[in-house]
Amino acid sequence: MATLEDIGVSAIINILGAFAFLLAFALLRIQPINDRVYFPKWYIAGKRTSPRSWGGVVGKFVNLNIITYFTFLNWMPQALKMSESEIISHAGLDSAVFLRIYTLGLKIFGPIAIAALLVLIPVNLSDGTLSFLRRDLVVSDIDKLSISNVRSESNKFFVHIGMEYLFTLWSCYMLYKEYDRVASMRLKFLASQGRRAEQFTVLVRNVPRISGRSLSDSVETFFQRNHPDHYLCHQAVYNANKFAKLIRKRNRLQNWLDYNQLKHERHPNKKRPTTDTGCLGLWGDEVDSIDYYKEQIKYLDRKITMERQKVLKDSKSITPASFVSFNSRWGAAVCAQTQQSKNPTLWLTNWAPEPRDVYWQNLAIPFFSLSVRKLVISLSVFALVFFYMIPIAFVQSLANLEGLEKVAPFLRPVIEWKFAKSFLQGFLPGLTLKLFLYFLPSFLMVMSKIEGHVAVSVLERRTAAKYYYFMLVNVFLGSIVTGTAFQQLHAFLHESPSQIPRNIGVSIPMKATFFITYIMVDGWAGIAGEILRLKYLVIFHLKNMFIVKTERDLDKAMNPGGVDFPETLPCLQLYFLLGLVYMVVTPILLPFILIFFAFAYFVYRHQVINVYNQQYESAAAFWPHVHGRIVASLLISQLLLLGLIGTKKAANSTPLLVVLPILTLTFHKYCKNRFEPAFRKYPLEEAVSKDEQDRATGSEIDLKSYLADAYLHPIFHSFEEVDLVEVKVENAPAQPQAEAKAHIESSSPSELSSPSPHHAHHLEDEPSQTVQHYEFEAPHSAYHYEAEQNYTAYHYEVESQSDVYRYDSEPHYQYYHY
Amino acid sequence: MATLEDIGVSAIINILGAFAFLLAFALLRIQPINDRVYFPKWYIAGKRTSPRSWGGVVGKFVNLNIITYFTFLNWMPQALKMSESEIISHAGLDSAVFLRIYTLGLKIFGPIAIAALLVLIPVNLSDGTLSFLRRDLVVSDIDKLSISNVRSESNKFFVHIGMEYLFTLWSCYMLYKEYDRVASMRLKFLASQGRRAEQFTVLVRNVPRISGRSLSDSVETFFQRNHPDHYLCHQAVYNANKFAKLIRKRNRLQNWLDYNQLKHERHPNKKRPTTDTGCLGLWGDEVDSIDYYKEQIKYLDRKITMERQKVLKDSKSITPASFVSFNSRWGAAVCAQTQQSKNPTLWLTNWAPEPRDVYWQNLAIPFFSLSVRKLVISLSVFALVFFYMIPIAFVQSLANLEGLEKVAPFLRPVIEWKFAKSFLQGFLPGLTLKLFLYFLPSFLMVMSKIEGHVAVSVLERRTAAKYYYFMLVNVFLGSIVTGTAFQQLHAFLHESPSQIPRNIGVSIPMKATFFITYIMVDGWAGIAGEILRLKYLVIFHLKNMFIVKTERDLDKAMNPGGVDFPETLPCLQLYFLLGLVYMVVTPILLPFILIFFAFAYFVYRHQVINVYNQQYESAAAFWPHVHGRIVASLLISQLLLLGLIGTKKAANSTPLLVVLPILTLTFHKYCKNRFEPAFRKYPLEEAVSKDEQDRATGSEIDLKSYLADAYLHPIFHSFEEVDLVEVKVENAPAQPQAEAKAHIESSSPSELSSPSPHHAHHLEDEPSQTVQHYEFEAPHSAYHYEAEQNYTAYHYEVESQSDVYRYDSEPHYQYYHY
Repeated sequence: MATLEDIGVSAIINILGAFAFLLAFALLRIQPINDRVYFPKWYIAGKRTSPRSWGGVVGKFVNLNIITYFTFLNWMPQALKMSESEIISHAGLDSAVFLRIYTLGLKIFGPIAIAALLVLIPVNLSDGTLSFLRRDLVVSDIDKLSISNVRSESNKFFVHIGMEYLFTLWSCYMLYKEYDRVASMRLKFLASQGRRAEQFTVLVRNVPRISGRSLSDSVETFFQRNHPDHYLCHQAVYNANKFAKLIRKRNRLQNWLDYNQLKHERHPNKKRPTTDTGCLGLWGDEVDSIDYYKEQIKYLDRKITMERQKVLKDSKSITPASFVSFNSRWGAAVCAQTQQSKNPTLWLTNWAPEPRDVYWQNLAIPFFSLSVRKLVISLSVFALVFFYMIPIAFVQSLANLEGLEKVAPFLRPVIEWKFAKSFLQGFLPGLTLKLFLYFLPSFLMVMSKIEGHVAVSVLERRTAAKYYYFMLVNVFLGSIVTGTAFQQLHAFLHESPSQIPRNIGVSIPMKATFFITYIMVDGWAGIAGEILRLKYLVIFHLKNMFIVKTERDLDKAMNPGGVDFPETLPCLQLYFLLGLVYMVVTPILLPFILIFFAFAYFVYRHQVINVYNQQYESAAAFWPHVHGRIVASLLISQLLLLGLIGTKKAANSTPLLVVLPILTLTFHKYCKNRFEPAFRKYPLEEAVSKDEQDRATGSEIDLKSYLADAYLHPIFHSFEEVDLVEVKVENAPAQPQAEAKAHIESSSPSELSSPSPHHAHHLEDEPSQTVQHYEFEAPHSAYHYEAEQNYTAYHYEVESQSDVYRYDSEPHYQYYHY
Repeated sequence: MATLEDIGVSAIINILGAFAFLLAFALLRIQPINDRVYFPKWYIAGKRTSPRSWGGVVGKFVNLNIITYFTFLNWMPQALKMSESEIISHAGLDSAVFLRIYTLGLKIFGPIAIAALLVLIPVNLSDGTLSFLRRDLVVSDIDKLSISNVRSESNKFFVHIGMEYLFTLWSCYMLYKEYDRVASMRLKFLASQGRRAEQFTVLVRNVPRISGRSLSDSVETFFQRNHPDHYLCHQAVYNANKFAKLIRKRNRLQNWLDYNQLKHERHPNKKRPTTDTGCLGLWGDEVDSIDYYKEQIKYLDRKITMERQKVLKDSKSITPASFVSFNSRWGAAVCAQTQQSKNPTLWLTNWAPEPRDVYWQNLAIPFFSLSVRKLVISLSVFALVFFYMIPIAFVQSLANLEGLEKVAPFLRPVIEWKFAKSFLQGFLPGLTLKLFLYFLPSFLMVMSKIEGHVAVSVLERRTAAKYYYFMLVNVFLGSIVTGTAFQQLHAFLHESPSQIPRNIGVSIPMKATFFITYIMVDGWAGIAGEILRLKYLVIFHLKNMFIVKTERDLDKAMNPGGVDFPETLPCLQLYFLLGLVYMVVTPILLPFILIFFAFAYFVYRHQVINVYNQQYESAAAFWPHVHGRIVASLLISQLLLLGLIGTKKAANSTPLLVVLPILTLTFHKYCKNRFEPAFRKYPLEEAVSKDEQDRATGSEIDLKSYLADAYLHPIFHSFEEVDLVEVKVENAPAQPQAEAKAHIESSSPSELSSPSPHHAHHLEDEPSQTVQHYEFEAPHSAYHYEAEQNYTAYHYEVESQSDVYRYDSEPHYQYYHY
């Protein structure tokens, strides 16, 4: 066990490390060449278009202003300058609330740390037990400050129990206030949002297939019947997985084409690049690369168009899910919250996620399959958490030196060298474990995807939950009770429920020093590493050198991603757990956690302002989980303290603690009832007042056209984009192709801008008509449209997907049959 | 342990007992004098008005038809004659579905019993272990047929585990089919119901008090704003607890008056009865009883009227709950299922229970108080289940002979008598326990009431749940593991989770004989006792002799009550538990349970058809609980079998069983998602189709007047009734009083028949106007009304309660100030 000096040394090392990172960051961030790595958010927000420059060719890449080097810590006050409401409008509510978790940590642990240090440490120190009773054991100085130092059967445990009550009360008070605040922030944010597609739209799943009727037809009929005054339109969801695969292939080919063209342009004197047509371009006939890829892309384009036609026309490619839009927020709120059908597994309605938040692949999973998937994944997560060491050990046993020798016989001389041998033998198993841990979040994400959630935000939250269980069992419990998680599970099953907290509780004080160093390494130095973004820096410059050709490529290379919720939230919750468990046991740990929270707050505030670009906005939907897990940590802390004091034979004070978990659970239940609906449902009161606001501004006429394309599968959008961009990039395309593309360019934008000209026309004629009126006109105009164009079967698809359909009907055929 | 012969003797005794009960029942039920005890349902349904008679004075009381005595078991085929749909229309869905629980028992255990007896008993018998290994133990013959007879480490356990899988599969299949059937029965029943107030009405609780505004006012404004097209009207809930107390007091006095008048009428020559005015009528001035009670009633009537005025006028007596009605079922379904307000603890909406199902006292409990109540009651139930022996033991220690001697010294000679002493010493503690168990259901009902549920049906279900926990721990576990529940709890806390099922499992086979006798005593003879209704028979005849004076009194005395769900359901579930636990362990128990289910089915079918009169109709809302607890029993059975086989060292077969509980849980979860919404929510599809039916028949004009009084506190109704009945009963009232009452009689019916003449008038003028139109007219007519009558403050109360208000405005004052 470490002494106070050891910890001091470790602290100095970690602080120095953190400072080194900060210094590197400060130097790198003021170089214009790195501007897009450290300030991408400003480019994305459109507030900056080119790096700040100090003049001259060199000034474009290196910062020549000497003064800025001396103010290398000035990002900290800068990060604090922005107010919360500015952050919300700059980076979204998710990021702003994410930062509040750190301030919540400070608010909870600040006063607790002061009270604990002032009251508990003197109480713990006043007994000299440890040093005098267990002379044979090596006792650290830290232990003298902890509860271990209190004599068994002492009445001083009343102080600890009293403090646990006080701290729990304080934590609950802060949690309650914060939940209240976040809930009202969320409601305010939702209320302040402009008109957005998801406010009017409900995702319907498990639409039953009725023979002799198309799915779109049944959706239309069902909602027109059950929401007669509110139903507006719907958008079918296409199973475009095969289509997406083709698009991905086309992108890959396009990249090769670009690469070869660039190569040719740079050295026009050299002979044109060639490639082999066989597998991986390694053998086969040698052909001209540019021509080859162009031919391939042309062929693929034809396939894509056909696939697209098939997807849009074939009724089988419509999945039994649909986005149903209503003419008012009230109508959508009602539909999302009510049961539609007699059979509660059909016509499942839920709020539609934001269009950019939808995870399209999972929309079509039927109800029964969802139940099975959930079961399978829960069992897998359980197995993963408790038995993950088994496959790792198996792989480790394979990845030994003999195996390596067999695979790569030429390495034999190196392996036989003694030093290398011992190094590898120590290194390989560790590498396996490290690799597993590195890929764990992605692996958990795949599991969440299999579970069948339909929004990226939900996927991330579920992944965070799984990661949290893993951390709780394998990092927290695994560090306290030695042995693998599997052994712990075995012990849990064969020990009495009252014995488990004792066994864990008794070893808690002894692990305080370990967790202090953990906090310094992971929390202090790790966070400083986060701000440096070394990985992104390297990748960006590599991409910039080799791939980037257009502005769009530059944007792609710059893409900073959002806050990594699946990893960051569980880690944060681990710090809360550590703080709450040790607040009474070893209060000296608290200042370290406080420093972590404060430092991380600065860093993430800076990152949120300057770097991250959230992919979606869930309006702080993760808060109930954050709250719930902090309460769970409180419960764990209470149970462990109960176990710990139980081993101290403090029979007269222990029973006092039993009430605390019950009270905490009640608090949790109350909070759940009080606040959680704000995160799950949309109150009608809100919907009505927003609808009225809209009506007052009189801007609801174009609602149907506004919603018409909001939930189109992004693949269809991206296809359009690809076409348009291509024209810009290619400078010398074949003549007929260029013509055809020009045709698309000239025809599609005009059609895109008014997806349903018929509706628009109708509405312009009668600008004063009410929403209901508008509603009943809709089917009529659809029929109208149908009659004109002589389509027979799927006029409902036509209606909702009209612009898509028109877009790819005529011009494309012209284009590909030149 | 009992041998097979012992069980045979016990069976004969119980069968004889059951036959004796049946014989007594058969003799008693055909006597005309008992007709109202054994066939009250027919009187209540109005299909029979006077007992069948065999002519003459004697024939009115005794059955003189000899033939009927020989067909004394013919009630059984009679009970089966009615089809299920007839039962539903005759006695309601609750009763019909209640009977299905028994057939479900037969369906589950019938095939299981056959399979178990054919397969498992030969397997168990083939080993001779018990008789030859444990020669020192007294081993019963029953044990030879059970799993105990199988040698440890035998491979025969694979057969048992296979059978457990098979039986679980079968049970789940039957449960699924039954849930499906009941759910569709429920939906069909709801769909077939005519127009009922609860279909259009939503109970709103926690209406916030806004200063300067009456509660009715805020309700009106809130719903008019948030459900503009659907809101129709609302009825405030009055806090009439004090009023109800006065009414009760008045009823008591009225009873005394009737008693004295009757006494005087029977013996008009004797001097008029007198009473003492002091406490309990034991001392004080002696006065003429009839005059005294009349005076008292008069005084009380004045107080009642004042209290009533106060309740109706004082805005403080309006509780923050309200029944809000909508103009369509769709509107009500939407409001009941959505969140109304930003603060989810305000404006809580739920389906309104049937008017007769409402438990009025609990309507006003605020949200926070509800949370606290739930916590307190859950803790109390936990304490009651595990520690109920502590207070009982305390009372028992008080209720000993010394205590009795002190309280009643005159009993000393009796107590000192040796035989009496020993008898009392053995009897008193038992009596205390017996009394506790007798009052337990009522006690649990009080707890449920404190918990704050708003419907009688919910109260009964919650009581049943509490009673089930009590039975599970104290009857089932208590019989298997000796020792009090408290000792068990202690053991559970200090044993490992894997040890508990072993400890219980290992003693299960040994208790089979006990449970067989339990089934015979409680299940066979007890059910036969149920059909005899001895208690009701005695009470009815006593009441008939002393109290009954009018038809209404006769109806009251005849009131048979409904199925006693709080007691019957948990007992039934205990039988399911026994069957499922023993089906693999000691299959010989199954035939006894089968006989119970079959016999009880006959008896309850007869009772439902001829006797019970349900107080409410919850449309089988208890089924999810029945289903859930049978699944829980399945889980318990699997865990105990796991424990039992675990002790048999069958290491190669045991792990197979671990999967079963997980699969069962998944089944439960799937059923919950698939069927439970049918019992909790009301699908919009249903609402729309019912609304359309109504519209087709064109009978929705008078909806508002139809709903106006549906949810008036019954106390106000009963007061009217009392007045009206009184006139009939009293033959010689004082002159002015009679005049006043005649006035009421003549004035009130006309006003009651058209509660809001203004609305009715309005609607008749414009019969073709739509629902929306009608809605927006409502406030206008209210103002109209107000102007006419010159009321100032509470015009919303006036609107919703208009007829009540009018009824007690003028005539009452005339009446009481004569």
